[in-house]
Amino acid sequence: MAKAVVLLSGGMDSAVTAAVAASLGECAVLHVNYGQRTEGRELRAFNDIARFYGVKERLVVDISHLKLIGGSALTDRNIDVPQGDLKRTDVPVTYVPFRNAHLLSIAVSWAEVIGASEIYIGAVEEDSSGYPDCTRRFFDSFEQTANLGTKPETGIRIVTPLINLRKSDIVKKGLSLGAPMHLTWSCYKEEDEACGECDSCLLRLRGFSEAGVADPIPYRRRKDLKG
Amino acid sequence: MAKAVVLLSGGMDSAVTAAVAASLGECAVLHVNYGQRTEGRELRAFNDIARFYGVKERLVVDISHLKLIGGSALTDRNIDVPQGDLKRTDVPVTYVPFRNAHLLSIAVSWAEVIGASEIYIGAVEEDSSGYPDCTRRFFDSFEQTANLGTKPETGIRIVTPLINLRKSDIVKKGLSLGAPMHLTWSCYKEEDEACGECDSCLLRLRGFSEAGVADPIPYRRRKDLKG
Repeated sequence: MAKAVVLLSGGMDSAVTAAVAASLGECAVLHVNYGQRTEGRELRAFNDIARFYGVKERLVVDISHLKLIGGSALTDRNIDVPQGDLKRTDVPVTYVPFRNAHLLSIAVSWAEVIGASEIYIGAVEEDSSGYPDCTRRFFDSFEQTANLGTKPETGIRIVTPLINLRKSDIVKKGLSLGAPMHLTWSCYKEEDEACGECDSCLLRLRGFSEAGVADPIPYRRRKDLKG
Repeated sequence: MAKAVVLLSGGMDSAVTAAVAASLGECAVLHVNYGQRTEGRELRAFNDIARFYGVKERLVVDISHLKLIGGSALTDRNIDVPQGDLKRTDVPVTYVPFRNAHLLSIAVSWAEVIGASEIYIGAVEEDSSGYPDCTRRFFDSFEQTANLGTKPETGIRIVTPLINLRKSDIVKKGLSLGAPMHLTWSCYKEEDEACGECDSCLLRLRGFSEAGVADPIPYRRRKDLKG
């Protein structure tokens, strides 16, 4: 495999993505702070996971201008993070406008300089958030844009190993690859104990529940997800 | 015209682009520092031009992680800005890897939040730098990516009014629209008097020379561009 840049937020999906990439070859890991509420906790998870995989090539970037721009419950303290509602069909208020384009642009620039040609991102289209920048169509289009906007010899491929998986399949894949689930952090709201109520916690808990295994991280409360 | 976000570096091309956008409707202006050598001088030009056009909606963003990533003479002090060579055909060392994707991602996120749907960027494909992220093919692809990665109702158009112009035509267009050429800054190297020797200075001086008018900004030296 060509050298890869892995976008590693510190959440479960990104950790499983790192596990996939690490099983195939050499990785560099990229973490992006964008003024989200749980930034400190996520950065700790990033470093813990990078250490777990022995990755030395690490880059941490701050784009907290996304907080300046606002428009999302994750970056604007005036918009509350809602309690989860997994039956909703519109774009949720936790959508950070065009966020993944920022993350991928940084990954592409870095990849071009360090000689990597694959970019791994743990986005999930099915069974997930409803964010427009988490679809495979978006990633295909971004890949084309990246190849037009970089040197001819660069050659970028955007790899989304989880894109069509259900959360429960992600849990199972992570366990089968030995991904360090206990080091990950997914909650949108809290940094010591996961709230157990936001969209991200609900999706994660449902995934573990459907996979029939216990989530190893601490929760303030766990909703009954049966029925 | 729909409300527009104009990428305004403070250089001549961006000022002429702002002049085009301002002649058509309401504008917001965006300036991005990316750790380039002449950042302070460019920011002054941005504010001077924004004031000239009475634009109140301004955003200044710092992405100096591009300096951390390096790979360009504009952001890495270990790579010299070369004396200009307008006959070169490869990608020059002043290319900042995938830079325009970063600028456009910020513009798209901001546009989505403030309700703008057009993004003006003063990129020039003909008679210019040889940067891969300055071609209309790249912008078309980015526009498609932006529309896939934002809310369905957002609708982004990337407008490049200078893309096929020669520098001399940009000078003429700027003069015909009354653009404040005296407030602009293009030099890659210097902040008080333009060096007159880098690619950016050479292109600008040749443009003014071919247009048959004098460039109103101060130069340390002006190469003879005849023959």
